[in-house]
Amino acid sequence: MPTISRRGFLATSGPLAAASAMTGAVASGTTVFRPDVQALPRVRQQLVDPPFVPDHAQVAERGPKVVEVELVVREDRRVIDNDGTEIHALTFNGSIPGPLIVCHEGDYVELTLKNPAGNRLLHNIDFHASTGALGGGALTAVRPGEQVVLRWKAIKPGTFIYHCAPGGSMIPYHVVSGMNGAVMVLPRNGLEDRDGSPIRYDRAYYVGEQDYYVPRDADGNFATFDAPPVAETLDAMRTLTPSHVVFNGRAGALTGDNAMTSRVGESVLFIHSQANRDSRPHLIGGHGDFVWEQGSFSDPPAHGLETWFIRGGSAGAAIYTFRQPGLYVYLNHNLIEAVELGALAHVTVEGEWDDDLMTQVTAPGPIAGG
Amino acid sequence: MPTISRRGFLATSGPLAAASAMTGAVASGTTVFRPDVQALPRVRQQLVDPPFVPDHAQVAERGPKVVEVELVVREDRRVIDNDGTEIHALTFNGSIPGPLIVCHEGDYVELTLKNPAGNRLLHNIDFHASTGALGGGALTAVRPGEQVVLRWKAIKPGTFIYHCAPGGSMIPYHVVSGMNGAVMVLPRNGLEDRDGSPIRYDRAYYVGEQDYYVPRDADGNFATFDAPPVAETLDAMRTLTPSHVVFNGRAGALTGDNAMTSRVGESVLFIHSQANRDSRPHLIGGHGDFVWEQGSFSDPPAHGLETWFIRGGSAGAAIYTFRQPGLYVYLNHNLIEAVELGALAHVTVEGEWDDDLMTQVTAPGPIAGG
Amino acid sequence: MPTISRRGFLATSGPLAAASAMTGAVASGTTVFRPDVQALPRVRQQLVDPPFVPDHAQVAERGPKVVEVELVVREDRRVIDNDGTEIHALTFNGSIPGPLIVCHEGDYVELTLKNPAGNRLLHNIDFHASTGALGGGALTAVRPGEQVVLRWKAIKPGTFIYHCAPGGSMIPYHVVSGMNGAVMVLPRNGLEDRDGSPIRYDRAYYVGEQDYYVPRDADGNFATFDAPPVAETLDAMRTLTPSHVVFNGRAGALTGDNAMTSRVGESVLFIHSQANRDSRPHLIGGHGDFVWEQGSFSDPPAHGLETWFIRGGSAGAAIYTFRQPGLYVYLNHNLIEAVELGALAHVTVEGEWDDDLMTQVTAPGPIAGG
Repeated sequence: MPTISRRGFLATSGPLAAASAMTGAVASGTTVFRPDVQALPRVRQQLVDPPFVPDHAQVAERGPKVVEVELVVREDRRVIDNDGTEIHALTFNGSIPGPLIVCHEGDYVELTLKNPAGNRLLHNIDFHASTGALGGGALTAVRPGEQVVLRWKAIKPGTFIYHCAPGGSMIPYHVVSGMNGAVMVLPRNGLEDRDGSPIRYDRAYYVGEQDYYVPRDADGNFATFDAPPVAETLDAMRTLTPSHVVFNGRAGALTGDNAMTSRVGESVLFIHSQANRDSRPHLIGGHGDFVWEQGSFSDPPAHGLETWFIRGGSAGAAIYTFRQPGLYVYLNHNLIEAVELGALAHVTVEGEWDDDLMTQVTAPGPIAGG
Repeated sequence: MPTISRRGFLATSGPLAAASAMTGAVASGTTVFRPDVQALPRVRQQLVDPPFVPDHAQVAERGPKVVEVELVVREDRRVIDNDGTEIHALTFNGSIPGPLIVCHEGDYVELTLKNPAGNRLLHNIDFHASTGALGGGALTAVRPGEQVVLRWKAIKPGTFIYHCAPGGSMIPYHVVSGMNGAVMVLPRNGLEDRDGSPIRYDRAYYVGEQDYYVPRDADGNFATFDAPPVAETLDAMRTLTPSHVVFNGRAGALTGDNAMTSRVGESVLFIHSQANRDSRPHLIGGHGDFVWEQGSFSDPPAHGLETWFIRGGSAGAAIYTFRQPGLYVYLNHNLIEAVELGALAHVTVEGEWDDDLMTQVTAPGPIAGG
Repeated sequence: MPTISRRGFLATSGPLAAASAMTGAVASGTTVFRPDVQALPRVRQQLVDPPFVPDHAQVAERGPKVVEVELVVREDRRVIDNDGTEIHALTFNGSIPGPLIVCHEGDYVELTLKNPAGNRLLHNIDFHASTGALGGGALTAVRPGEQVVLRWKAIKPGTFIYHCAPGGSMIPYHVVSGMNGAVMVLPRNGLEDRDGSPIRYDRAYYVGEQDYYVPRDADGNFATFDAPPVAETLDAMRTLTPSHVVFNGRAGALTGDNAMTSRVGESVLFIHSQANRDSRPHLIGGHGDFVWEQGSFSDPPAHGLETWFIRGGSAGAAIYTFRQPGLYVYLNHNLIEAVELGALAHVTVEGEWDDDLMTQVTAPGPIAGG
């Protein structure tokens, strides 16, 4: 697969072709309104691998700030299941999903996007949380060896996808190769319930769900390729039937020793993103006490859900206060996608069992009178 | 397919492996809080085959109670369409879906689960309405010839799935073989609208939608098997494309002579569950006047919907007051799934026609001036 | 394919069979309540091809009226992508989707449905916004050369699908051949936000999403047929995997020179319908400021969404006030369905760029220190 030039990108007849007109508008430097962003305090946010989230304050400690983050594109090969199936991955900072970025409404996010020399492809980034220029996609196309700096203002509170969108078929191809992540824009006063009372969490996890479309060989087995199998993967994608649906990059990334953890009485925020395909998160043995299914913190959460729905191309959030110890399974409740394709995580919770909520009255034994 | 031992179940490396730790916690008998459940009144709820629902009060008549129910696992072969296609079904109480259980928020559900000798498989039950122990799944694994008694407290009002979840691939396999049903946890004061005014229904029906993945033979026809075709069915399941999507166990279960019934002026509650796959209920000729799409009675209903959405792994509820007599079709409004795969029911409604709402001004006839 | 007689339609054992009973009820002329509809003012609404919408007042200017519209069925062959793939289309008024009809809550819609001589098939119409008689489907079956006049009252405010539903397999077949559209029933006082404040739009567009299931030949290429390939298409439909998912009838119908347009500061209403299959609209570079995802104007809108969800068999609405100039891509954010299957439109927006919302701090260039 040849390296795609930015010139080629802008001249394409694909969906992003007209972006050149807008880029021109930007280049001409017409400014409608510009507060003194230079005078704002600046904070460098240390991004971390999911399911962990950066240190952050739930309530903004002072006025708007500029949150500086860096994303570095990595192209590599990696295994995505326990059978050794390998893909040619495209990632932000090496993780699938890319790291969660956290800021508050009214803050500015200033991203340095680096596409190291040695990579083969053009990349960019579309922030669903931002406004204009195809979410920044039209302003951030970087060839291998290049970097770009983009700043955008977080005007909508909620959880939002970001993803690579370099034009035409490369948009879905890069996204299903792993190149997506999320931003959480907290309200300045933190989260609130339907009545305006504060909702706080003790811990937060970011679960990024990823659909893969691994091509098969003539025998129906997953094929391995020396070069990225773009045409074969696009053929598989057009079936709309993924070969794998996983959390955090590979089957089993968040189970067993890698389980998320909590304890009874703790409130845990789960941010769930799916950049391309619908999902339906469910916590076996628990619930969503507060759920922002559509991801908007401008709207009150839903209460007491068994299962919630993440629209393909969005991120949502749910908070649960654990009431019982033990193992919980957090999964996409299409049970085939969860168990057979991989969309399943564990949460292990410490604490004391509450017999009032559930008790085994009589252990398994012979059927009475049977 | 060999009988799966409970020992094997707990030792598995599948998603439920860590359950043994929690079961240990339960076995140690640590009790955080236990009201005097023994002193509460007990009611035995007579379960009935869907689409019918047990007798119940919409407003709780007194304080919390223990609702005793019994579910008996039945493994059998049955036909699921009009072409004689047969599956090896797994069921609770013989019906697909299993019976609806009804209680009020704050009540306790005490289930006796029986797996009669003569069955071949290990079964258990995960109640989405309950809290802890994988929804009870980790405390209820019964081998053929065994029974278990589980009690759990209904702390979230709404409609919730229950299903068998015996570990690994058997979780989706048992669910798509029919082993799922629903619990309705009513608010103690009954249902309310957005403003807190009571909503009452005159009649209730429970529609359980079921996706099947019947394996095909070399000619592309549905195959028949003497023993349960587990491997073949799992292969079909991984396509994520069901061969059948039906209401109440088989195509045509709720049409013609088996249609649901009502009359003009009656308010009917439709509870709709789908344990594995998304659905979009629609009532041709009617609406959802009040819809709890996500199934939570803690949230106000939506109003006046044409179509609502049931997330895979959840149950929802809708109330409609019929305004016209005649035939209504209640279906999953993916019309292919409804008409070609079977997800379609009838409601026949008696009463007097209202010309103000609809009238045939001019009957079909030659085109004027044509 | 033979012409289907209306007699055959009513006698079918398919889902609409019992309609004859209801038609009887209508024929008997029993009237429960009938205001003096004859005395109401009548307005003839000039329907237009999507994405345009008929001229209309956002706030009703006086009391209820009768809105007269005419839909003429057209059966033809047309190309649906840039590769020359052809379908045997079935349409209302020649467009896919059919035209948007606009009225206010409490108005009456009086439809003349014409099925011109020369057509081959029986057609009818089911209005999701109406009440009774299968949404009018049981009262409007017209053979080639016939017309019918149906009047119904718009009692639910919102956006609603209409579609042909002539019985049995012909229901999904006609719908996925293009025969669907939408009605918008505005509240008499116009749209309102959560607090009851008015929401107004400067411009409105109607985007109808359409899934096609074009049969393939033995080589896997899309096949061309002299006669409508009903059996082949039904086979393709049963895979539940569309060959094309497009906006307004064909890939590229709303891109490039056919892009929707707006300007900075303008509020645009996007009505989005999908008569058969789920969708997830997203505006790249923008948001849904106000979103009625379920299509009901009886409920308050959601705020600030990145992506919203249209349930198969429904229509929804979203309003966005553009804040930046340039190109926007409005798509179904299953990016495979958007880019590979065709569900993608453009919006070109004029105005001045706002550097405060987004700015390219440093243009693409060599990696610092790299």
